Amino acid sequence: MSFPAPFEKVRITTPRRLGVLGGMGPLATADFYAKLIRLTLARSDQEHLPTVIASLPQIPDRTAAIIGSGLSPLPAMREALRVLEHAGVERVAIPCNTAHFWFDALQGATHLPLLHIVDAVAAALSARGLAPGDIVGLLATDGTLKAEIYQRRLHRFGYACATPTPHGQRSVMNAIRRVKAGEPAAATAALRNAVAGLREKGCAAVILACTELPLALPTEHSDVLLDATEALALACLRDAAPPP
Amino acid sequence: MSFPAPFEKVRITTPRRLGVLGGMGPLATADFYAKLIRLTLARSDQEHLPTVIASLPQIPDRTAAIIGSGLSPLPAMREALRVLEHAGVERVAIPCNTAHFWFDALQGATHLPLLHIVDAVAAALSARGLAPGDIVGLLATDGTLKAEIYQRRLHRFGYACATPTPHGQRSVMNAIRRVKAGEPAAATAALRNAVAGLREKGCAAVILACTELPLALPTEHSDVLLDATEALALACLRDAAPPP
Repeated sequence: MSFPAPFEKVRITTPRRLGVLGGMGPLATADFYAKLIRLTLARSDQEHLPTVIASLPQIPDRTAAIIGSGLSPLPAMREALRVLEHAGVERVAIPCNTAHFWFDALQGATHLPLLHIVDAVAAALSARGLAPGDIVGLLATDGTLKAEIYQRRLHRFGYACATPTPHGQRSVMNAIRRVKAGEPAAATAALRNAVAGLREKGCAAVILACTELPLALPTEHSDVLLDATEALALACLRDAAPPP
Repeated sequence: MSFPAPFEKVRITTPRRLGVLGGMGPLATADFYAKLIRLTLARSDQEHLPTVIASLPQIPDRTAAIIGSGLSPLPAMREALRVLEHAGVERVAIPCNTAHFWFDALQGATHLPLLHIVDAVAAALSARGLAPGDIVGLLATDGTLKAEIYQRRLHRFGYACATPTPHGQRSVMNAIRRVKAGEPAAATAALRNAVAGLREKGCAAVILACTELPLALPTEHSDVLLDATEALALACLRDAAPPP
């Protein structure tokens, strides 16, 4: 199947101040913000979305907490939400897939509406022509897969999910660590192999469901890869450009 | 003269929360944050600098205000400082050269120490071997040049400044507008011409003194160009890694 070219830009009509609960990791936050800007149809600074980014990378590791070997990141994420509340934001996005394990707890801790990254991905899959029953491949951290963050929520939209083999998943985790260490180029080959493995399982699309991955594996001009970071940025802009 | 290769990375020892008064423009803010991360020596998320970014692009145009044809951006910048104060930051950087016209007024409006971009550039020039008496070329907005933001402050460090011809300056402003409109590649040729003109005036270094310019004119591997955005990011990291 063939997907349309990169996402179309969005012109903001309601400049609601966006909050970003970030720092997980910091480079993924920078990547999210750059994509938010690039997806905005604007001729001047003033036509861009006002955004407050709390990039607080001291938040404990999310995968370690889910696997059971680390501190909970929830208290630090709640503190970051307080920062965003005081900053007058009206919506919050979290450019970290694994952090969505705590989505309901975070939503319960604030009056601010949180935008869910899997809902953003589901909207992008639908816009690209995928239909209920299609199989979607996941490239994600051990934590995101173990917690079934995508599997459960995409099931609501009718999609089935496939994940790499145990060996393939170990190479994906190594690739993510390389990106976090500032060496994205060292991660690309392993990720291409993992994508090929998922394609063999019949996946119509493969989601880069960890915000570090698009830094190592460009999705432009790909008719298979879907960048969850880009889908989240698009959902934030659409939220600021409601249909009349 | 030959400059050393790109800036060396800095390992943070004092994770002071940094505030960024941004959105002028938003892409320059994203570029600053990406450079801050890339210049950090870190093996994990947690070793990066905690940062809160108020990217509020509705701040009125800085150059228009200096030239006398636009609203003052000062009230909106003061409001952004309030956001950063409430976010618990300990230092503030402003990745917009022209906004430094209001530096003293902003410093008078907050107890938070502000880091001055021209001081960061002066430190980088000195680290690259420039000495008092050397001539430094400026590529900047009309507002930054007219307000003599660089000329006055670099004079304190003993440097003389050169600026493009009136014709060259018009092409620089057109290039900056192209970047703000999301078309950095359309700006590169005009900027290369402006750099050549400044070299003919005897400049030992040419400063990209507008945060939009590095997006159109890469400074890597150049022994002449100095990216003020990168210099500011480095100063923020050095501030979080004080000598023992």
